[in-house]
Amino acid sequence: MDSCVTAAIATREANELAFLHVSYGQRTEARERKAFNDIADHFGAEKRMEVSIAHLAKIGGSSLTDKSIEVADADLENEEIPTSYVPFRNANLLCIAVSWAEVIGASSIYIGAVAEDSSGYPDCRPEFFGAFEAMVAEGTRPETRISIKTPIIHLSKAEIVRMGMELKAPLELTWSCYRNEELACGTCDSCALRLRGFEQAGVEDPLSYEI
Amino acid sequence: MDSCVTAAIATREANELAFLHVSYGQRTEARERKAFNDIADHFGAEKRMEVSIAHLAKIGGSSLTDKSIEVADADLENEEIPTSYVPFRNANLLCIAVSWAEVIGASSIYIGAVAEDSSGYPDCRPEFFGAFEAMVAEGTRPETRISIKTPIIHLSKAEIVRMGMELKAPLELTWSCYRNEELACGTCDSCALRLRGFEQAGVEDPLSYEI
Repeated sequence: MDSCVTAAIATREANELAFLHVSYGQRTEARERKAFNDIADHFGAEKRMEVSIAHLAKIGGSSLTDKSIEVADADLENEEIPTSYVPFRNANLLCIAVSWAEVIGASSIYIGAVAEDSSGYPDCRPEFFGAFEAMVAEGTRPETRISIKTPIIHLSKAEIVRMGMELKAPLELTWSCYRNEELACGTCDSCALRLRGFEQAGVEDPLSYEI
Repeated sequence: MDSCVTAAIATREANELAFLHVSYGQRTEARERKAFNDIADHFGAEKRMEVSIAHLAKIGGSSLTDKSIEVADADLENEEIPTSYVPFRNANLLCIAVSWAEVIGASSIYIGAVAEDSSGYPDCRPEFFGAFEAMVAEGTRPETRISIKTPIIHLSKAEIVRMGMELKAPLELTWSCYRNEELACGTCDSCALRLRGFEQAGVEDPLSYEI
């Protein structure tokens, strides 16, 4: 959902979009790939790339990629980093995007990260993206200029839902559940955050849930 | 060679080494993987991981991964970034290392980057590694402390050869050629830099060349 709303924002700001999907051995990989292609079709993106970094699953350390760690039920009051944190995932994703951007000459990379109203992952904070952008400037060709755009980073989930409605983002094509690929579970961190967002926005979630 | 000498330095500074090899669809992938395992055996590294990020080849933009771009003969006086530059490769490699380091609790990542006496890749400069280390601090768990060590970054190739001899690094197990996997070509950028380094150090290169 966050990526989809971010894409809707990007279409207003950019001449052309290139869509990158990264699988990392997560449980709901196939369903997320379908959502990626449906959303890229919706926005008419001709340039698209699907990449697998399944080594993040081999490295482990997260309930999203390691089947021996259970995906916990949401505890939205808990301030600790949840077991679903995939160590340094966003930096890995963004590096691939930067390599691609440098080759095709893209000047902005959009990512739908959300800081406050999220799970408290360290690689979702504005400080991280600022440091990442500075690192990109040092590690690419002198003529390369790439900015990292996080247009929804300070929004709450409810604001993201509202913005999605306003921009006519195809929220019915998105997938958020960490556990299931057919009916969303409704109780994992990601489902709980999404459902609370729709509820607070006063909008009905177009997805179906098993609860 | 640079990685091997760096590993020899790391063995003196660290309690335990974990060896990471990353293939990225480069021409000499199989030969480099053999060198990796030979060197890891030499240093008795129990923890080792081999990862493929062949999407860098799909992204292209480099003569090392794109067979439609020829690997140029060396021109060591040329100050432009050579065609062998793989866009943002070192950031991609290091991100994998950081994910692994965070999971196994490693506190240092060693990389055999060389700045001055090298091909002028932007992601080999000290400024890049400094910015990368700052980004890691922002993007990992609060308790995670990972430093990026580049112990040979300011050495010339001749100094690297001399240090390798001094530390008894197994230079005969290393591979540098960008073109070939059996007899090194002797004329690509990487061979030319290596041969000049051995010559200036007054040491005979243990590898065989086709020239």
